[in-house]
Amino acid sequence: MRAVTEVQDGMVVGLGTGSTATFAVEALAKRVSQGLRIVTVPTSERTRALAQKLGVPLAPVGDWPAIDLVIDGADQVERGSLVLIKGLGGALLREKIVASSGKRMIVVVDESKIVDRLGGQTPLPVEIVAFGWQGTIERLETLGVQPKLRVTDDRPFVSDGGNHIADCHLAEIADARDLEAKLSRIVGVIETGLFVGLASMVVVGGSTGIEVMKR
Amino acid sequence: MRAVTEVQDGMVVGLGTGSTATFAVEALAKRVSQGLRIVTVPTSERTRALAQKLGVPLAPVGDWPAIDLVIDGADQVERGSLVLIKGLGGALLREKIVASSGKRMIVVVDESKIVDRLGGQTPLPVEIVAFGWQGTIERLETLGVQPKLRVTDDRPFVSDGGNHIADCHLAEIADARDLEAKLSRIVGVIETGLFVGLASMVVVGGSTGIEVMKR
Repeated sequence: MRAVTEVQDGMVVGLGTGSTATFAVEALAKRVSQGLRIVTVPTSERTRALAQKLGVPLAPVGDWPAIDLVIDGADQVERGSLVLIKGLGGALLREKIVASSGKRMIVVVDESKIVDRLGGQTPLPVEIVAFGWQGTIERLETLGVQPKLRVTDDRPFVSDGGNHIADCHLAEIADARDLEAKLSRIVGVIETGLFVGLASMVVVGGSTGIEVMKR
Repeated sequence: MRAVTEVQDGMVVGLGTGSTATFAVEALAKRVSQGLRIVTVPTSERTRALAQKLGVPLAPVGDWPAIDLVIDGADQVERGSLVLIKGLGGALLREKIVASSGKRMIVVVDESKIVDRLGGQTPLPVEIVAFGWQGTIERLETLGVQPKLRVTDDRPFVSDGGNHIADCHLAEIADARDLEAKLSRIVGVIETGLFVGLASMVVVGGSTGIEVMKR
């Protein structure tokens, strides 16, 4: 796996959640069995469990080492800017905290995720406080972002942090940084799925091979 | 209690946390026993328990009626702007969500809380995600706000929502709206203790009587 070749001895590696993270943990497990010494910080209980099962060393819970490199997927990647939409899998908050704490973030996606302009078919997930979520949805509506509470099995979806998700439907996102600032100011919003200025490299797997995009 | 005279039959009343809320619940309990019909939304487990004990009707958990009036205290009130600092008691997130969801907010304080400029001796509490709090503190430091993790009994303080608090020490807050926007954009920050544009009336109890300030 291309992204995993960037991992070097002694590094602290942040691990995302989802199919990319699964591949990364498997590839890292192989290198660890060959002698690579690393410590990892997982962004979800799921990734933590997988790393543990495959023998990839974890940072102790509560410990927070300086993260050298983060490997994660994305739901959309904007060509050129490398701004991401993440959070369809529900782990956006921890993913964003780890990405923001890391020196470098490498994103691995297939070519279907690359777009010229974010938004459209892919909603923007926004993590909101469970307490009073109804009021937060109303405040989001005043921004015109068409929020919809994410529901699974007839109940509000609950993230690893105990929060809910509002999926916001936008025709297109012209100015991600401005939208991010507006959403962040809404009381009850914890974090948005917009990752601006975080990905330093995107590895795109396509039918004709691998493309690497850098900022 | 002056603030409680604003409560009318049929209202939904948001209740803060702390000594002001305690007085308000007691005064409301008296009026309820005299026939006042209201429903209340508490901002903490503590206020909920008190209301329940004194027979003040509570909105069912998970229900979120339109809130007519919020009664709460504050740690600092800026004369003129009525911008507040709240959160020394640790319930700022729910207090801010209820205040933001209410049509009106009445703040009750003693005169020692009124200042010409916010900041100084009173730190600004900022509620942050427990996961990776160390990284969030580092990001707050880049803003120059001197964050300090709140600790009780040698452990990080945990809010009703399961989060931590960073108390930020600022000489003075010149532009509360701008500071609020900057803090909100920091990844890992959930909500700040700055309440801008939320209080519509402040009732100040002093040695010479009661003063009412309005915006």
